[in-house]
Amino acid sequence: MSTPSSLEELIEALRCLPGIGPKSAQRMAYHLLQRDRKGARRLADGMSHALEAIRHCSRCNTFTESDVCERCASTKRDASLLCVVETPVDMNMMEQTQAYNGLYYVIMGRLSPLDGVGPRELQLDRLLARACDGEVQEVILATNYTNEGEATAHYVSELLRSRGIKVTRIARGVPVGGELEYVDAGTLAQAMRERKNVEA
Amino acid sequence: MSTPSSLEELIEALRCLPGIGPKSAQRMAYHLLQRDRKGARRLADGMSHALEAIRHCSRCNTFTESDVCERCASTKRDASLLCVVETPVDMNMMEQTQAYNGLYYVIMGRLSPLDGVGPRELQLDRLLARACDGEVQEVILATNYTNEGEATAHYVSELLRSRGIKVTRIARGVPVGGELEYVDAGTLAQAMRERKNVEA
Repeated sequence: MSTPSSLEELIEALRCLPGIGPKSAQRMAYHLLQRDRKGARRLADGMSHALEAIRHCSRCNTFTESDVCERCASTKRDASLLCVVETPVDMNMMEQTQAYNGLYYVIMGRLSPLDGVGPRELQLDRLLARACDGEVQEVILATNYTNEGEATAHYVSELLRSRGIKVTRIARGVPVGGELEYVDAGTLAQAMRERKNVEA
Repeated sequence: MSTPSSLEELIEALRCLPGIGPKSAQRMAYHLLQRDRKGARRLADGMSHALEAIRHCSRCNTFTESDVCERCASTKRDASLLCVVETPVDMNMMEQTQAYNGLYYVIMGRLSPLDGVGPRELQLDRLLARACDGEVQEVILATNYTNEGEATAHYVSELLRSRGIKVTRIARGVPVGGELEYVDAGTLAQAMRERKNVEA
């Protein structure tokens, strides 16, 4: 006399979504079945379709529907520069700056030993192979300035430099528009250490 | 050169989930495609299956896979009592008390004029028809003691009493194990007003 089995299965399945516990999953299932069956239909179909269509670009590893993504296939980008980011979102952020016209490699994560994510899980050998294609002259590490992002950048730079590839890291410092009063001490200390000559 | 269309559609579709905005939807889509394709497959299938299998019990309006749910079909329940609750979760909570052996009617919501949910949206005429089946002797209103739950109880009681049906409301007062020091003033005031004779 309890919940119908197909409803129970749906509630259980919803828990694969990040950050969704049993209570939220139940609330979601009830909401969809009661108030938004059209949305639920669209979600089920959209998910099936994405699972079939989406794969990883064989060059930059980002999500794409073809073997090589549009950006990697473009002849207008500078193939001598390879910018390494953690996620597709980071890549989009970088693109929005319009300050970079090279290519990318998306790690799809970061080193996180506590969560069992090591170099093998991230398939960093694919990044190595990509960077050693002969065309790439400089690898720019643009992982986050978090502990995990820093560790990832360190690991990747060791990996690449041992192959004689030039590796750089995006700059750290006071944000544009930032006031010293409100910048954290760590950032300010780095900005001081990494100070640059003022050009005439 | 942006997000593949099937990925964009999935992100958009995920926003039908309650409480999920654009950032969360993006995070969920990336997580599923990158880390849990099996879970995503299960979710898509589970949702399709539930949408096909789940409907409303023709008697109590709860979710079920058959025309009449197990509970309504049971001959062991007291058909003269009808307990009105807002959601299937509330019904399960009431069942867990093992203090009630009558039948239920699940409104699947509450009156909420600001959200455009009125008596018509809740199909309260179905509740009326159910309560007037001749067998029901008492309708017990067990909607929440929130403003909306109270308004719903008030509306339903007016509706039913005009048909000469006995209507009761679950008691309000100090929770079992509750200490006066920590009970809110409104609850305490109600407990005082609705005080009962101590039986010998």
